Amino acid sequence: MDIKVPLTVPEYAKKEYISNYKELTKGTGRLMIFAGDQKIEHMNDDFFGEGIAKDDADPEHLFRIASEGKICAFATQLGLIARYEEYGKVPYIVKINSKTHLVKTRDPISRALVTIQDVIDLKERGVNILGVGYTIYPGSEYEHIMFREASKIILEAHKHGLIAILWSYPRGKNVKNEKDPHLIAGAAGIALCLGADFVKVNYPGDSYKFKETILAAGRTGVLCAGGSKIEEEKFLKQIWEQINISGAKGNATGRNIHQRPLEEAIKMCNAIYAITIEGKSWEEAIKILRG
Amino acid sequence: MDIKVPLTVPEYAKKEYISNYKELTKGTGRLMIFAGDQKIEHMNDDFFGEGIAKDDADPEHLFRIASEGKICAFATQLGLIARYEEYGKVPYIVKINSKTHLVKTRDPISRALVTIQDVIDLKERGVNILGVGYTIYPGSEYEHIMFREASKIILEAHKHGLIAILWSYPRGKNVKNEKDPHLIAGAAGIALCLGADFVKVNYPGDSYKFKETILAAGRTGVLCAGGSKIEEEKFLKQIWEQINISGAKGNATGRNIHQRPLEEAIKMCNAIYAITIEGKSWEEAIKILRG
Amino acid sequence: MDIKVPLTVPEYAKKEYISNYKELTKGTGRLMIFAGDQKIEHMNDDFFGEGIAKDDADPEHLFRIASEGKICAFATQLGLIARYEEYGKVPYIVKINSKTHLVKTRDPISRALVTIQDVIDLKERGVNILGVGYTIYPGSEYEHIMFREASKIILEAHKHGLIAILWSYPRGKNVKNEKDPHLIAGAAGIALCLGADFVKVNYPGDSYKFKETILAAGRTGVLCAGGSKIEEEKFLKQIWEQINISGAKGNATGRNIHQRPLEEAIKMCNAIYAITIEGKSWEEAIKILRG
Amino acid sequence: MDIKVPLTVPEYAKKEYISNYKELTKGTGRLMIFAGDQKIEHMNDDFFGEGIAKDDADPEHLFRIASEGKICAFATQLGLIARYEEYGKVPYIVKINSKTHLVKTRDPISRALVTIQDVIDLKERGVNILGVGYTIYPGSEYEHIMFREASKIILEAHKHGLIAILWSYPRGKNVKNEKDPHLIAGAAGIALCLGADFVKVNYPGDSYKFKETILAAGRTGVLCAGGSKIEEEKFLKQIWEQINISGAKGNATGRNIHQRPLEEAIKMCNAIYAITIEGKSWEEAIKILRG
Amino acid sequence: MDIKVPLTVPEYAKKEYISNYKELTKGTGRLMIFAGDQKIEHMNDDFFGEGIAKDDADPEHLFRIASEGKICAFATQLGLIARYEEYGKVPYIVKINSKTHLVKTRDPISRALVTIQDVIDLKERGVNILGVGYTIYPGSEYEHIMFREASKIILEAHKHGLIAILWSYPRGKNVKNEKDPHLIAGAAGIALCLGADFVKVNYPGDSYKFKETILAAGRTGVLCAGGSKIEEEKFLKQIWEQINISGAKGNATGRNIHQRPLEEAIKMCNAIYAITIEGKSWEEAIKILRG
Repeated sequence: MDIKVPLTVPEYAKKEYISNYKELTKGTGRLMIFAGDQKIEHMNDDFFGEGIAKDDADPEHLFRIASEGKICAFATQLGLIARYEEYGKVPYIVKINSKTHLVKTRDPISRALVTIQDVIDLKERGVNILGVGYTIYPGSEYEHIMFREASKIILEAHKHGLIAILWSYPRGKNVKNEKDPHLIAGAAGIALCLGADFVKVNYPGDSYKFKETILAAGRTGVLCAGGSKIEEEKFLKQIWEQINISGAKGNATGRNIHQRPLEEAIKMCNAIYAITIEGKSWEEAIKILRG
Repeated sequence: MDIKVPLTVPEYAKKEYISNYKELTKGTGRLMIFAGDQKIEHMNDDFFGEGIAKDDADPEHLFRIASEGKICAFATQLGLIARYEEYGKVPYIVKINSKTHLVKTRDPISRALVTIQDVIDLKERGVNILGVGYTIYPGSEYEHIMFREASKIILEAHKHGLIAILWSYPRGKNVKNEKDPHLIAGAAGIALCLGADFVKVNYPGDSYKFKETILAAGRTGVLCAGGSKIEEEKFLKQIWEQINISGAKGNATGRNIHQRPLEEAIKMCNAIYAITIEGKSWEEAIKILRG
Repeated sequence: MDIKVPLTVPEYAKKEYISNYKELTKGTGRLMIFAGDQKIEHMNDDFFGEGIAKDDADPEHLFRIASEGKICAFATQLGLIARYEEYGKVPYIVKINSKTHLVKTRDPISRALVTIQDVIDLKERGVNILGVGYTIYPGSEYEHIMFREASKIILEAHKHGLIAILWSYPRGKNVKNEKDPHLIAGAAGIALCLGADFVKVNYPGDSYKFKETILAAGRTGVLCAGGSKIEEEKFLKQIWEQINISGAKGNATGRNIHQRPLEEAIKMCNAIYAITIEGKSWEEAIKILRG
Repeated sequence: MDIKVPLTVPEYAKKEYISNYKELTKGTGRLMIFAGDQKIEHMNDDFFGEGIAKDDADPEHLFRIASEGKICAFATQLGLIARYEEYGKVPYIVKINSKTHLVKTRDPISRALVTIQDVIDLKERGVNILGVGYTIYPGSEYEHIMFREASKIILEAHKHGLIAILWSYPRGKNVKNEKDPHLIAGAAGIALCLGADFVKVNYPGDSYKFKETILAAGRTGVLCAGGSKIEEEKFLKQIWEQINISGAKGNATGRNIHQRPLEEAIKMCNAIYAITIEGKSWEEAIKILRG
Repeated sequence: MDIKVPLTVPEYAKKEYISNYKELTKGTGRLMIFAGDQKIEHMNDDFFGEGIAKDDADPEHLFRIASEGKICAFATQLGLIARYEEYGKVPYIVKINSKTHLVKTRDPISRALVTIQDVIDLKERGVNILGVGYTIYPGSEYEHIMFREASKIILEAHKHGLIAILWSYPRGKNVKNEKDPHLIAGAAGIALCLGADFVKVNYPGDSYKFKETILAAGRTGVLCAGGSKIEEEKFLKQIWEQINISGAKGNATGRNIHQRPLEEAIKMCNAIYAITIEGKSWEEAIKILRG
């Protein structure tokens, strides 16, 4: 496996970086993230209500899925991870910043809740943390604050050999169409220039047009956000196309997993993992999901 | 008693954390707070006027109640605590931030008045401080500032073994209904993700709908704000239901206690304490109040 | 004399605090401040114009009064004090923050101009500094910035044994009536919760209604702002009533002193001092003023 | 070659500064920059679409041009450089700040993404970094933030012997005509007063009127921004005139280079370089481009 | 010569302060500044255009004047000084902050571009720096930011024995008449309270009314801004009156000097210097100018 260690990783941290990178991508360079930062981002809307399994009302549901399903990493906030000590072996991405979806009267701004040192402290207490995540909102009136913080967090993470992932979502009153493939390509390119290892973007819905994004991201691997819960077959086929047609390096899925009952959620993890990491077809993945 | 020490508490601070946790919850895991931070939050409105006992005009009234009534902790600002040295044995929660209710032309923002080091300094001078409190306003245009500060304060408090409690109140021009049970559940979930030990929320008024909040908070214990002074029987019954029907871990009551004359206030403490800590029925609590 | 040293004063600074407190209050616990921070607050409006003595145009007038009249302390900015070295024996309160009265298009905000270390540096060069002052504007959209800075300054001042005084004036577009006695009581209570030794408030004009403020301030002594120049008898009588009817701990007077020619100004100091510190009646004070 | 080392370069850093200056300007004092910071500034608009070579969709295109074409330096973000380790011998200018072109509802603001220490760290890992770049927007409501940061970055860069270049673009709601020669002259003068070695400005389009800018910049060398892709002959002639008529010290060209296929792009670099560094006529440059 | 060293100058820096003060005022206590910070403040408007000598287009013109004309100090930005090393013997005032005149949509704000340590670094490299200058805008919505920064810069400058001068200009939407003598007096008084050695104000145009300002400034010496270029006789007479009728300590002139050809500009310096430092009449000064 050819790992290009970026120059922002100092010599002394290279071994750690390579080790984290291999464990995170299971030696494939691809990445299947179970995304669970919505308890701040969407408050309880994603966890309780019509069409959502009762299991999801209890946050431990997320940890049960993460420890029993096949995933590369579970991405969530440090405070949450710290409360569920017995799941310390789950591979984690610590989501550094988060905001609620309530504020609509000003452009989005989301600030770091913890430092990389806080992350390292937790790792040294035995939690299997492999990397960190941070969200930027290009086009927001506050993009300058987040670009700067993202850059500093990536540099600091790399100093500790952690993998750095940006969530890059154009948003705010200056953004007309968040799903514009060309705009998404730009959002991915920003992550590259900020030094991210991976960038999570919204999928524009067309696997051919999405190639622009993969190209624009250069050596930063592109991950697709799972979005809201959709029909299973369509969802898995889409994930397959993102990787095999567009050239994405993986995905980060939350609601399409955790809004199901535990057993189903585990199977969904396994199905996505099969496509992303094990090179299975989407038909095989469907069988895993249903079998 | 099973105490789940969060991983944000370092090894060297665990003993202190467990000791504070046990003393604060009287070994029950439940918590009855006497809340007295309103001298900044509501200025003199809660302490002087129609329907308020004359005793309440003098701030020492709060300390007299705290030292003579049964409570788990008295929550108030550091500056106030520092002025009443002879009440150093009262168990305290230092309320770190506070704002007035005057400002209506912009969304709520409340910043830390003191550092955790300031709190530790006071503790080392013999004041029985067991934990700290901090208010966040999800949905405020300034939530990012408070989320970040809350997170840092919780992490720092845990480094010193202090118990960390968030007051989490959705508020501001983007919040239509502060009493929406689903929104309150979300507010509790944020506190969990920020690593709080307990979260104080507004009670939505329905003990069955409130279960969503208890679930959403996961391993963070939910406390109910007492709110403005209401009829005694209704109040005590409500407290009983919050714990025994909804699954709340306790309550934080201010006005329903301190707006009464000293003797009555003490009895009210004892009545709430009986339900919360001693497992009494609300009818027994009424007897304590009136007896 | 019973001095309650607050717990924010560390052991090593207690002796200094007690010494400063005794010297400042002349052993009475009461305080007569000559307030001279208006050269920033009101620019030259208070020092030059109709009805103002010609003496007042030269800032040295303030120092001449402070050194020849009876006062407990002269409160003014550090930069001004530093320019009049020969008056180093005057007891000083360093006013830490100041703003002009020009800005009406936004809510008031006033930030610290110097640090406590700057104050200590000056004290160590032989200037008789006994304490510091800081203004907060409860109700301003920027109250959170000033509450936080006030709290930090009080804590730092106490670490050096300096007496800490807050000027607490509700102001800004959210404040309808700055002279509302109930609101002023709230403003005094905030100062208590921030840990101030004394709080200077606007006098609501009714010595009986003002009692609410004295009570609300608890162990923080209440001082009355002198306000604009008014008729002598009325002024002295009012000062007497504030102390002897309402229970105020003293006053801080500027314009009613320095807008007079030197000799008159000195006599006015002596008259106010007689009521505040020497326990004289207002009729006796009038004699001092006129004698 | 007469190199005027500014006094902001300390004695110990002079040798490094002179070495960087000589290498950067090929001993001529003139400078031909290949500008590639647009992946944040213009997102993917400059790299994909009608009239843009397919090669440009992949960011490595920039590095291929930079390593095969004749240039003095390639200017781009640190994060991007760090990802393409094998191009470490390319001479780099690290672009310190960047923003997107999306935000139109407020005046431009762009903040430093990395520190000079981060730049030095990368240099010490073997990347051939010769200087840094920073953009200021005179006339923006946030100019004070950028002027201050620019000044600090220049001073810090000089402490490490790095060459400091400002991009100075008057912009924002207070700027009526960004191409006004007199305004551009002012923008260049600001860069001089901030201590920059070179200033990149928009070319006002008239080589005689542009002389005002060259004069106003004093000892700070003026570089012309290439702007959007225009007709080749016109472009090269313009570059020749900027240097030979106006007195510019060089240019910084992005789109007019990288929007071409690799071979053409390399030739364009060589053509611009011929004029700027080798003293060729624009007719000779055209031959290089086409030959 | 009686030099009142302010108490903000520590013992160890007194000798340096006295030496700088004497050199700066030529032992007279008065001060004639050649002001050249307009390249940021007014961009190129003051240096190029109708009625401005061609010499002025090149910034070196300023240094030629400063080194050949009689002046007490040349005030300009650090970055500019650093570029013209051979003029290191010119006595300098480093202008710490500057903004452009472009921004009209918000109140003026100007922030420090360099620190006092940066100034000291330059001084230690052999540049004859005697003091620093900083502009405050009383009445601006951002006055609190500038008052605070001014205060800190003055304190820090004094720690190094540097002379500290404030430019104090009431400005912004809350200021109706910038030339109101009473307002200008207030602006001077602020500088005194912030601890400045000298304050530069706009001249209200009436030498008798201006006396209020001289008085209000107390022990802070008042300097008059030269303003835009006016008729020679009127200008020199005005300067004479400011000193000899009003009591000003000197002046700071820019455009009335540098907008002339070198020889004329030098003579103008000499003429102003003759009045300010050598005690000549304005008629004699006219002869110097024309002779």
